[in-house]
This record gives sequence, C-alpha cells and structure tokens, in this order.
Amino acid sequence: MDYLPRPDDTRFLLHEVLGAGEQWRALPAFAEVDDALADQVLQEAGKFVAEAIAPLNRAGDAVGCRFEAGAVAAPPGFRAAYQAFWQAGWPALSADAAHGGQGLPAVLEAVLYEWLSAANQGFTMAPGLLHGAYECLKHHGSPELRERYLAKLATGEWLATMCLTEAHAGSDLGLVRTRAVPRADGTLRVDGSKIFISGGEHDLADNIVHLVLCRLPDAPPGPKGLSLALVPKLLEGGARNAVFCERIEEKMGLHGSPTCAMRFDEATGWLIGEAGRGLAAMFVMMNAARLHVALQGIGMLDAAWQKAHAYAAERRQMRAPGAQGTEPSPIAEHPAIARILDTQRAWIDGARLLAYRTGLRLDLARHAEDPKARAAAQRWCALATPVLKAACTQQGFEGASACLQVFGGHGYVREWGIEQHVRDVRVAMLYEGTNEIQAIDLLVRKVLPDAGADFSALLLELRDELDAAREADADAQRRLAQLRYLATSVALASQARPRLAYEVADDFLRVTALALLAWAWARIAAQAPDDVRWSQPAAAFRRWVLPEFDMRLAMVKQAAQAVAQAAAG
Amino acid sequence: MDYLPRPDDTRFLLHEVLGAGEQWRALPAFAEVDDALADQVLQEAGKFVAEAIAPLNRAGDAVGCRFEAGAVAAPPGFRAAYQAFWQAGWPALSADAAHGGQGLPAVLEAVLYEWLSAANQGFTMAPGLLHGAYECLKHHGSPELRERYLAKLATGEWLATMCLTEAHAGSDLGLVRTRAVPRADGTLRVDGSKIFISGGEHDLADNIVHLVLCRLPDAPPGPKGLSLALVPKLLEGGARNAVFCERIEEKMGLHGSPTCAMRFDEATGWLIGEAGRGLAAMFVMMNAARLHVALQGIGMLDAAWQKAHAYAAERRQMRAPGAQGTEPSPIAEHPAIARILDTQRAWIDGARLLAYRTGLRLDLARHAEDPKARAAAQRWCALATPVLKAACTQQGFEGASACLQVFGGHGYVREWGIEQHVRDVRVAMLYEGTNEIQAIDLLVRKVLPDAGADFSALLLELRDELDAAREADADAQRRLAQLRYLATSVALASQARPRLAYEVADDFLRVTALALLAWAWARIAAQAPDDVRWSQPAAAFRRWVLPEFDMRLAMVKQAAQAVAQAAAG
Repeated sequence: MDYLPRPDDTRFLLHEVLGAGEQWRALPAFAEVDDALADQVLQEAGKFVAEAIAPLNRAGDAVGCRFEAGAVAAPPGFRAAYQAFWQAGWPALSADAAHGGQGLPAVLEAVLYEWLSAANQGFTMAPGLLHGAYECLKHHGSPELRERYLAKLATGEWLATMCLTEAHAGSDLGLVRTRAVPRADGTLRVDGSKIFISGGEHDLADNIVHLVLCRLPDAPPGPKGLSLALVPKLLEGGARNAVFCERIEEKMGLHGSPTCAMRFDEATGWLIGEAGRGLAAMFVMMNAARLHVALQGIGMLDAAWQKAHAYAAERRQMRAPGAQGTEPSPIAEHPAIARILDTQRAWIDGARLLAYRTGLRLDLARHAEDPKARAAAQRWCALATPVLKAACTQQGFEGASACLQVFGGHGYVREWGIEQHVRDVRVAMLYEGTNEIQAIDLLVRKVLPDAGADFSALLLELRDELDAAREADADAQRRLAQLRYLATSVALASQARPRLAYEVADDFLRVTALALLAWAWARIAAQAPDDVRWSQPAAAFRRWVLPEFDMRLAMVKQAAQAVAQAAAG
Repeated sequence: MDYLPRPDDTRFLLHEVLGAGEQWRALPAFAEVDDALADQVLQEAGKFVAEAIAPLNRAGDAVGCRFEAGAVAAPPGFRAAYQAFWQAGWPALSADAAHGGQGLPAVLEAVLYEWLSAANQGFTMAPGLLHGAYECLKHHGSPELRERYLAKLATGEWLATMCLTEAHAGSDLGLVRTRAVPRADGTLRVDGSKIFISGGEHDLADNIVHLVLCRLPDAPPGPKGLSLALVPKLLEGGARNAVFCERIEEKMGLHGSPTCAMRFDEATGWLIGEAGRGLAAMFVMMNAARLHVALQGIGMLDAAWQKAHAYAAERRQMRAPGAQGTEPSPIAEHPAIARILDTQRAWIDGARLLAYRTGLRLDLARHAEDPKARAAAQRWCALATPVLKAACTQQGFEGASACLQVFGGHGYVREWGIEQHVRDVRVAMLYEGTNEIQAIDLLVRKVLPDAGADFSALLLELRDELDAAREADADAQRRLAQLRYLATSVALASQARPRLAYEVADDFLRVTALALLAWAWARIAAQAPDDVRWSQPAAAFRRWVLPEFDMRLAMVKQAAQAVAQAAAG
C-alpha cells in the first residue's frame, strides 16, 4: 500500500483554519493566486506524487543506490521519475518567474514536499536540496554565476548539494578544513574531503552543483574563517571537474538517497558571497530547509499512519471490550490500537497546521511590504522553526514506531513496508542540525538574548488569535501564559547559572511545541465539522498528548527555581 | 567496539543491594551455592560472552542467515560458537543435575542471558528458547518423551522452538488451525503452517525439537481446544521428519536469527500434557521467558550505551558551556549528551535490580519450602514480569535510539554499529506478547480480578524494604502509596465502565514501572559507594525519569475520576 496524499485535509487546514489565501493575496507577489488555482496545484501535485513517486519507494529501499567506479546509479525508476518531475515544473513552484519559476507561495511548496517525503523520502532528498541552493545563489551569487546556474537550479534541470560536514567537523562547522585558493583567472582551487553529502553523485540529472564550505588562505580559525564556493560536477562545455565520489555510506535507511563521501582534488570553483561569510550565505535558507525537515517527519509519520490505519481496519484478533458476538474484532476497535492511531493523527494534523503557518510566514518575511510585518513573520520563523524541526522529527520516529506496533510481529518483517518508515525517518532527528542543537538554537540563541521579549511577543500574537469563550481556546491561552512566565524565569535564573539553559533546552523546546500544538488544536476544533475525522484526534490530543505539557513545564520550572534558590541562599 | 560484560556492577546489585546469595542459600536446592562460586560463574560467563559471542554480532547483522533449498545457514562463526557454548555447559546452568544440568539459581542464568543478548541477540535467540522447552517438557512430558529429549535440551546439544503463531493467529492464539490427528501407534499426525518461528531451521545444532500448538479432532473452538505436540526435526535413528522450512523472513533487524515459516506435512509428533491444555503447558515458562525478554531490552540498551559512552568521551565538537580554553570539548561534557547517557544508565541499572529480584523470585517460587513464601514469590513474578517486559523493551528501543543520537549523523551509518542495536531491539516490544498485551495482562487479568489485593500486597512488601528516614526511600514510599490508591480507584471505576481498564492499561503499567524504579534507585542509593558511577544515574533518575510518574498517575486518575463522576451524575 503506497502513500496517498489527501488534498482535502490540506485544503481544510490551509483555507478554513488559516485563511492562507487571504494572507498571501495581501502580498503583491501573490495577489493573483486565488484559492482555486492553489487547489488545482495541490490536486495535480497529489496526483503526481501518488502516481509517479510513491510506487518507487519500496524499490528505493530494497535495491537502493549502487556505487561503482566513482559513479552512483539511483534505484530503478528514479531517473525517469526525476526527469518527469522537473519537466512538469514541480521544482520551480516557488521560484521567480524570471528564472523559469512559477512564482507561487512557498507554503504550497511546503505542502508538495510534505507529500513527496511521505511518498518517498529517498527520492525527495535530491530535489529537496535544490531550493536552498537556489536561494543562496540568488542572494549571494555574482551576476556571472547567477547567469550560468540560477535557471538550471530553479527548474531543477540540474541538481545541487550542500557540502558542509567533514569527518571531524559535524555539529561544529568551525572545524572545517577544506581549502580554497584563488587562482589568477579568478576561479578557486578547491581541495578537501567532505562526508554525508546527500546526492553528491548520481544519475538523476545531467549536472550537480556543489556548494562547498571552505577556507580561503589566511582565514581565521573557527566559523568566521569559512567561505562558500560553488563547485560544479561538470564545467562549462561539459568537461568533468575534479570532484570525486569516493564511496556511498551504508545506512540504517534512506537507501534511495546516496550519502556520498566527496573528494575535491584541485577542483575548480567560484566564491559565493563575501570571503569569511560562508555560514551567513548558507543560513539564508536555513529556516526553509528546517521547516522542510519538520515536514519530512510529519509526512513519513502520515505514511506510516495510513498503513497502520488500513491494517487495523482489516486485521481481526480477539473480541474488543464490549463487542457483541463471538467473532474476533478488527484491531482498530481495541482501545490500545485506537489510541495509537488517534494520537498520531493528533500530532500529524496539529503539526501540519503549525508548519503551514510557518510556510506562510516565510512568504510574508520575503514579500510583505510593511517592514513590521516582515519582522513579525521573521520572528515567527526564527522561533518556530527549531521547535517544529525537533518536535516533528522526534514524533516522526516515535510515531512511526508506534504505527509499526499496530502490526504486531508483522510490523518487524519487511513485507508490510512499515519498518522502512521507521528506518527512513530516523535521520531527520540528526541532519540539518541535530534536535539537541535545535533546542540550544531556540533557548540559548533566540529566547534568552532578549530575555524572552521576542518569544513573548510571539506567544501573545497566538493568544490574540484565540477566543477565550471557547474551552479549548481558553486552555491554550492559559498554557501560552504559563510558557511566557517560564521563559522569564529561565532568563533570570540563567544569569545566575549560564549552564542552566543548556540543561533545560530540550524540555523547554518540548513544552513550547506542546503549547503550539494546543493552539493548533484549538484553532482546528473551532473550524472543524462535527466529524470523527477531527473530533477523535482532538480528543486524543487532550487526553494523551497534552499531559506532557505539565510535566515538562514542571521540570523546567523546578530547575530554574533550584538555581534561583541557590543564588538567593 | 564490542559489548563487554561488567561482572562487578552485577555483583554489586546482586550481593550488596539484593543480598541474593543469602536468599538463594535459604533454599535447600542452592544451600551450597556460595557467593564465591556465583562470582566465579559470572566471571567465566563474562569472559565467554566477550571472547566468543560478542565479536560475531556485526557479521550476524551484515551477512545474516541464508536460506537455500529448505536449509538455513547461520551467519559466519555461529555454529562453532554454539557448539563451544553448549559444550562448555552454559545452557545447562540452571537445569537439574539429573538431566546433566548444573543446578544453579535461575537468577544467574538471567544475568548470563542479559549479557548474551547485549553481546549478540541474533545468536542468543537460539539457546534462549531452550529453557522454556526444557521446563515445559519436564513438567508435562510423558516419561518416554522426557527420557528421549530432556537431557538433550538441558545440555543444549539439541535446540528447540515454540511454534505458536499462524498467519491469521498472532495475539489471538485461539484462532490456531494446525491439526494433530492420533495414529494407531500412539503418535500424532501433524499438519499445518506456522510463521515467525525463531530458529525453525538452522545448522547450529544436530536436531531441533519443535513444540507445536495444534488442535486435536473434535477440539472446541478457541483457546480451550488447543493442545501441544512435540515434533522433532529428526526422528529416532536420524530419519528426517516431515517438517519443512519454507522461507525465512526479511526483517528490520535480528538478521543473525532465522525467522522461519514452517510447514508440517503429515509430520510425526507426540502429545505433551493433556489434550486441550496446550496453552497451560506453554504458560509454565511464560514468566521466565518474559523476564528474559525484559533483559534483552536492557542488555541491548547497555550495549548501545557502551558504544555511545565511548564515542562521547573521544569525539570533540564545540566548547561545552563553562569549558576553559579554545579547544572543542569532548561531547560527553555537553549537557544534552550527558543527560542522554546518564538517563540510560538510570534505566539500565534500576531495571537490572528489578529483573534480578524477579529472577530470585523465580527461584523462590520453584524451590521455597514454605508454601506462603512460594505464593508471595509467585505473586511478584506474575505482577512484575509484564511490567518489566513492556517497560524494559520500550526503553531498550527508545534508549538505543537516544544513544544513536549521541553519534550525530555518524549514528545513522552502519560503520559504527550503533544503528544495529536500534533495529535489533525493536522486536522485543512485539514478541512474547506485545507490550500492549502485557499492559492488559497486568491490569485486566492480574490487578483487577481481586480488586488490587495482590498488587497492594506487593507494594506493601516493597514499602517495608525501605527506610523512611532516607529521603529517596520516603519519596519511593509515597509513590508506592499513590499507586496502591490508584489501583483501588481504577478497580472501582472499572465496575461502572469495564472498558476503562483497557483504555488506561498502558499508562497504569508505565506508572507501575516508574514506582518500581523509584524503589530500585532508593535501594541502590542506600548501598552505593560515593562515586559518580552511581550518583550520576541516581540524579538523572530523579531529574529526568521520575517526572513521568506524576504525569501517568494524573492521566489514569483523571480517567478513573471521569468515570466515577459520570456514574454518580
């Protein structure tokens, strides 16, 4: 059973709950994008994903990528699917019309990638990296580089990579050693080795554009000495550049995507942006990239949910409590199984709403005319993105494992395809910044520097979108207020003990995620039709997800109080 | 890096905390087993596991079992290791001297299997099933069957399987269809298909004895119509019986153990025990088998912890908060990593203490002279075993994933071996009764039928082993009291709404597990030397594990109160 996108659910969340169309049409860039056009795009996207991409997922895992003599063969069907994908214009959805793009809102692209990830993350890794490279080049590339590469990346005719990690430099990119030495002709000579390069080599597209984090001569040590180079696989005229794939990693999952060890051996490259500003150039696209990773977690969880839901409706074992007759019941009727399924649905739909809201804020941050509106949108993206990246990928993994549990022993065998989701999604907790780094990013880098002022403003904004006359809304408002107070407590206590923030960062991120989900489910419940499709996950959220809010709140509060007491005593 | 057993830790828990030797020496069967002998056995076991078993783990995963023309080849080195294993007497550790066993306490065997599982669960599956088959045959086999098979199973010269599951009958064994028809010569003709038969076919030992759940002619439908047959791979004289392995499953992990689909095609078998009492005959060994699965979870988590701990000490990325100088710190010094490692240690050592206590209670239940002591020990085993099986295997999986997280992106690639633990341990949440079934077993089948009386008695027994003058002990006593009260509330509310017990079973099991762990850590802390080896996990337990107790308690309490209110209103 392959994943099937459900555009109706997305339309409900986008239009009924978020009023997304009105928001993007307030931006001159998208004034003409009416809901009917957006719906048609989603309908077509769903069809393409279901027909062309989802059916290749199993072979991507079972056959995987093959490495031979420096070349990588993608799994069966992947090249043809990728060629159809870019020729149909899907990579260009949100790119500028000037570069061959369709100029649609980024939030629609986020939905497309959610579905692609759910259908086949091994495939999706390749185009998933295009958008960051496109944005990076658009903002920081020289006119010559933009002329040569931008349209190829906008349309997806060529693919791209991010070459950051080295064997000794993972979370700590300041340790990167790859060297780039200017040549007389204005190019760079690039030498070094990179690991974990997704799509570093393959046969999906005719060229691959590598963005390589490197050091120019005399650069200072640490992150401030890092620059960014563009190093293509094929030079102009089609000559092969000195970029080599040395091996592909054997991984836990995601076998459809080649994870390459790359060697640059006097390769030819060009500087992107200013020397020493390599990290800044890459961080342009970080929020969008991390949002997409959050949607990978949610998408793969949804795929696992669809399988488990279908299995639970068919499989009969034992009579459920209260069932009539002597026949065994569908296991969906057993409370333990219903709980698993409804709880995952609560996470998926609540997280979707938050992710779509973030996608809209990416559009606002880029295109709003009012600088204050841009700043507010930017604040949302900065604060919500690490929360969603960590919480959605963790739930992606734990929830996919819960869906596997629905299958009993059958879940552990390959035949049903459910265990592939558990293996595939696990990496999303690691890449694009580990989840622990997301937590530090949120609390240490973003909440504490202004003593929680921006964070507080964001929570007040959410509060004001709720209607205290509704019970779920009032409950969510109370939690948002508790969270504001918590941020202040932690900010104060951290002055006495700077280490505290690092100790409570994971719990602080988690309690924030749960408060945001409470907001999301209040908003969904206010608009949802009277239907078990929405009422069951809403009930599951209150009963089985939300109690963790109080636990994490108490944990962080207690840690902050202990510091305050020690400082006072 | 292979797993290395640490007998000193086990000795501390067994002797210093539990006073295990005194307890088993009070039993006539083990009066002569002094601590020095037990320590020597553990020392030798640790050596054998480290030298002969652990080094084969990676090949067990990478090469796996090979199926060809009905035969199964075990991974490289497995047959030689198994032959050395049984010839050294390890399977016979707790078997009766009359059958060639060493007559040692079952608690020592539990430790041996914890280490074997940690070192190489793919290998350990094969002998792991021996002990249940031995006990089953010892208690229910006819004199002829015992004469023919008991010594071979006691020593492990032959191996055994449990043939329960059929494609349509997993958790619901009452649906089993395999038929057994008596022949004139007193044998049975056995026909049917079984799936998920661990070790159904292999080349480790010279014969395999299958215990097959089946139906005699005219048996009633459901579980009461089930009988148990012994069906050997080779008949006397060495003729091949009509037992066929049709395929082995492709699985998420545990590739070192063949999971076989078996076909019995007019195979020859013999009835074990009475007709229609097949489930009862198998359930003799259920507590011991489930305890071993709990120790698999803990053992594999310990193996993952050892790898993560070593990696975190070596790998340097970024300065830890408060670190001096400019060099990156070992990641073990980063609070998020230290938390992961200490939290897993808290689970491992607390769960070990509970599992060893349960192993001792298995010995008491079998060998105590006083029937009241046997009954009390039996009560502990009945109640604690499902709790440990579910909680330890869940933590085995989630904790192994947390240990993988320590490696960052490196955790996702095969090279480091950490992802194998995550894949291997996942199955322990499914087999020997899914964790959801353990929760129903605890609450619905064991706590509620006597309105919590036995459960309450067990909690009082634990309370009395604590010293309220100590802070950790007083805290644990308070939680045990809360749990007693909770059981009573659920028992009352379940009368109004029988479905309630099924709805809260998972949370009830979990809150019980956390109360037992609080007891365990109070006991450990009271005896532990002043050393970070024990103080850090103790602190991690209080700070990061125990808060879940309050959350689950509140969840169950609230559900019970809602029912009580609805009934009253």
